[in-house]
Amino acid sequence: MTDDPILEDLRKRIAASPFHSGFGLSVEDASAGTVRLGWRAGPEHLNLQGLVHGGVLATLADVAMGLSVRTSIEPGRRHVTIELGMHYLRPAGPGDIEVVGRVIRVGSQIGYAEADVLQGKRLLARGSGTYSVTADRSGSG
Amino acid sequence: MTDDPILEDLRKRIAASPFHSGFGLSVEDASAGTVRLGWRAGPEHLNLQGLVHGGVLATLADVAMGLSVRTSIEPGRRHVTIELGMHYLRPAGPGDIEVVGRVIRVGSQIGYAEADVLQGKRLLARGSGTYSVTADRSGSG
Amino acid sequence: MTDDPILEDLRKRIAASPFHSGFGLSVEDASAGTVRLGWRAGPEHLNLQGLVHGGVLATLADVAMGLSVRTSIEPGRRHVTIELGMHYLRPAGPGDIEVVGRVIRVGSQIGYAEADVLQGKRLLARGSGTYSVTADRSGSG
Amino acid sequence: MTDDPILEDLRKRIAASPFHSGFGLSVEDASAGTVRLGWRAGPEHLNLQGLVHGGVLATLADVAMGLSVRTSIEPGRRHVTIELGMHYLRPAGPGDIEVVGRVIRVGSQIGYAEADVLQGKRLLARGSGTYSVTADRSGSG
Repeated sequence: MTDDPILEDLRKRIAASPFHSGFGLSVEDASAGTVRLGWRAGPEHLNLQGLVHGGVLATLADVAMGLSVRTSIEPGRRHVTIELGMHYLRPAGPGDIEVVGRVIRVGSQIGYAEADVLQGKRLLARGSGTYSVTADRSGSG
Repeated sequence: MTDDPILEDLRKRIAASPFHSGFGLSVEDASAGTVRLGWRAGPEHLNLQGLVHGGVLATLADVAMGLSVRTSIEPGRRHVTIELGMHYLRPAGPGDIEVVGRVIRVGSQIGYAEADVLQGKRLLARGSGTYSVTADRSGSG
Repeated sequence: MTDDPILEDLRKRIAASPFHSGFGLSVEDASAGTVRLGWRAGPEHLNLQGLVHGGVLATLADVAMGLSVRTSIEPGRRHVTIELGMHYLRPAGPGDIEVVGRVIRVGSQIGYAEADVLQGKRLLARGSGTYSVTADRSGSG
Repeated sequence: MTDDPILEDLRKRIAASPFHSGFGLSVEDASAGTVRLGWRAGPEHLNLQGLVHGGVLATLADVAMGLSVRTSIEPGRRHVTIELGMHYLRPAGPGDIEVVGRVIRVGSQIGYAEADVLQGKRLLARGSGTYSVTADRSGSG
């Protein structure tokens, strides 16, 4: 598919996780510190008002931010979400959604990242997340 | 099912929303200002580490908090999530999860609620949410 | 002043910090996991609208939460705020303000606490904070 | 001092507020949607560890974000902080601190802004804030 080792690694992780693969997201692009995801909102993701549920956008933002932290730490380490914040700016309708996660800082124990959730040029939501970065003792990371 | 008009109203809303009904959550209990949801994490909700994804817990917290705001406003009004925050305290494994949403304050335009996400007695996460409460012009509420 | 070693320790810390002593807050009560602060808003703390600035309430909440984490960790360890969140519910006028900080969970590296900011019985704001808890290498705590 | 009406307006507001003028901050620059503040941390702002207290940085971020919202709304309207979030990335020592607030979106009732807190080129903290934007009935706004 790709010769890029970062992109390849993230795609393998997504494919190996039952939740992520079932959710239907794709890793469109990745480099050190930044990850871009694609996802398509269908009729089954809409609430009573015909809008994509905010929890779905939170999920996408958390995945994009977590993977962006992933690109910034050594392979043998593990990242876990400590705290997640979302600000919803505009309603999201059905169709393609793009999410860009960006690392702001990764230290020895804590990482901080932010995310944009977009539909075309419209900024739907901004996310922020704090991640604990630890040695992966179990090897299952 | 029930004679309780608050509980009945919330269950109808959940059933009428494609997203909520597909997500598989149930409204276990509801009173003015408080809503308790039940949900079951299966193998398909687990990530690479065998844990429930934080985005799923954020979705459950947002639904519980939004419905708790719902119980505190007039039927003709509409609530929309402006901001959502999650603090993850303990890892969530497969099995039954309970989420309790509680209104802290609802004003004429803004509501604020909090949530506990539990597995048995273990507090998995705490959520907080700010909601815009507006007149429902469309009638689709 | 007091025979309570927790209360005594927190009061010494406040007195030894130029910022905290200048800010004029007092530790009214403390036990393992909970700290209650008192503070008085004077004319100099009011903004153009005659209200206490939200940054002052954030400061009080952060101090109360940080000290509540302090009561739950070993003396030789250090706590640093990673993330702070405030929800403002009602306007704060001049007069006495009380802030209660409560630990929700302290792990080996991360602590999470919440705070109530009160004026009499009125809940003015709710705070939440994530703290990094580390070994104090410098001895300056 | 300046011919810029936005900058002039913000400086007048700061000067007229007991809290803001006592805090010692200055409005260095302002345009539609962005405000840059300057502030100097002295010995009296340091905690036991010799670092600037996070509540002070939260105050600066809230002021910068609130003023950036101010530049984006009509003069007769009023902004009030509903929710404030801070992520602390690096410790702040004594000396000059710069804070840039930026509006991300202002709607008819709600505004959302973000802030960078800097010491030279070092990003100390990131802030986010939600503001209620209402008609100023009292004329005191």
